[in-house]
Amino acid sequence: MDEVRIIEIKKSVFEDNDRAADAMRGELKKKGVFLLNLMSSPGSGKTTTLIQTINRLKHKIRIAVMEADIDSDVDAVKIKDATGVESIQLHTGGMCHLDAEMTGQGLAAIGDQPDLVILENVGNLVCPAEFDTGAVKNAMILSVPEGHDKPLKYPLMFSICDVVVINKIDVLPYFDFDLDKCRQYIHMRNPKATIIPICAKTGEGVDAFADWLLSEVNQWKEA
Amino acid sequence: MDEVRIIEIKKSVFEDNDRAADAMRGELKKKGVFLLNLMSSPGSGKTTTLIQTINRLKHKIRIAVMEADIDSDVDAVKIKDATGVESIQLHTGGMCHLDAEMTGQGLAAIGDQPDLVILENVGNLVCPAEFDTGAVKNAMILSVPEGHDKPLKYPLMFSICDVVVINKIDVLPYFDFDLDKCRQYIHMRNPKATIIPICAKTGEGVDAFADWLLSEVNQWKEA
Repeated sequence: MDEVRIIEIKKSVFEDNDRAADAMRGELKKKGVFLLNLMSSPGSGKTTTLIQTINRLKHKIRIAVMEADIDSDVDAVKIKDATGVESIQLHTGGMCHLDAEMTGQGLAAIGDQPDLVILENVGNLVCPAEFDTGAVKNAMILSVPEGHDKPLKYPLMFSICDVVVINKIDVLPYFDFDLDKCRQYIHMRNPKATIIPICAKTGEGVDAFADWLLSEVNQWKEA
Repeated sequence: MDEVRIIEIKKSVFEDNDRAADAMRGELKKKGVFLLNLMSSPGSGKTTTLIQTINRLKHKIRIAVMEADIDSDVDAVKIKDATGVESIQLHTGGMCHLDAEMTGQGLAAIGDQPDLVILENVGNLVCPAEFDTGAVKNAMILSVPEGHDKPLKYPLMFSICDVVVINKIDVLPYFDFDLDKCRQYIHMRNPKATIIPICAKTGEGVDAFADWLLSEVNQWKEA
């Protein structure tokens, strides 16, 4: 297994996170770097989805990944081994989210100027939704076993996400998950959300997510 | 559907949560009330597990449930409809955990003196682990689709739980979930943790969890 760099994230001292996040987006725009903030519950398949997506895009654009975790580095190592792209681990030291300044500590540790940086946020549907990381777009993964009612119970998370990936559709026959109801609940929270059903394990639907991401990266560079 | 009471939880003003939690346990002991703090990720099956468990115990002991949620009341209504026991909803107003003082606001709203109060904490493996609610025992539910590696990634949560229920074992054939490895990782975090595999949907294994809980309630009353 490759070694990955581990960054111990310090608690943010900035009071005004929204301003810090806007400033970071301004910096990213100047540099032509697109930052995607990826959120989900633990076990929804963030890392597997990332590996599949990165392997479809890495020959078209330069990609780097920041894996936020309380204290392990299993995900950053997995991403690096499976894709070869730069992958660093952010240790939050127990903190349940990343704000813009903390995200900036990770960005500063990334070497080559990438076109796309993906932040895999802490696995949690509550806290990460409350803090703008400075990302250009927010994405979340909801997996079939979690149930189609989650947009009812985690309103803020679903309302701030530009794209909702519905993962593990291969197990739809074994769960009481109503895809139409799920779409309806998501659009209740955010009428503009793009919804992409996938199975990261088999790769089904991942092309659609990769296409969405590539198109967003290109729009960000051109606009 | 029955109506349930909704309690809007105010932010705690106490600085010293550990002391408040110990004081609450002292009070509960005097009154002969056992408080179970139940934690998990969103979608692990907490509510279904509770319904199955309560229906096995409600003729032996008096039970009440406090459902913590950011702002919906679907779970409290579901519990009340399916079991008939007193069920109140605690609205955390976006807060990602409950501390002892906040839990106390819920307890104060429960009428009859129950033998067992079950607190369904906010769905999150990070924040609730950091705050002692004043419960006598901590339980968590890990579901098969989340993966057997979760004790590696959420060390604090697994180290503070007295019992870990592994739910959705009916879908073991469809997921790469290694039950032996999971046991080993849980015991790495907490060698004394009781581990109970169940399927809340079919009821398999729920007797074992209900027995564990009843035995704990009786010990608490007698000790």
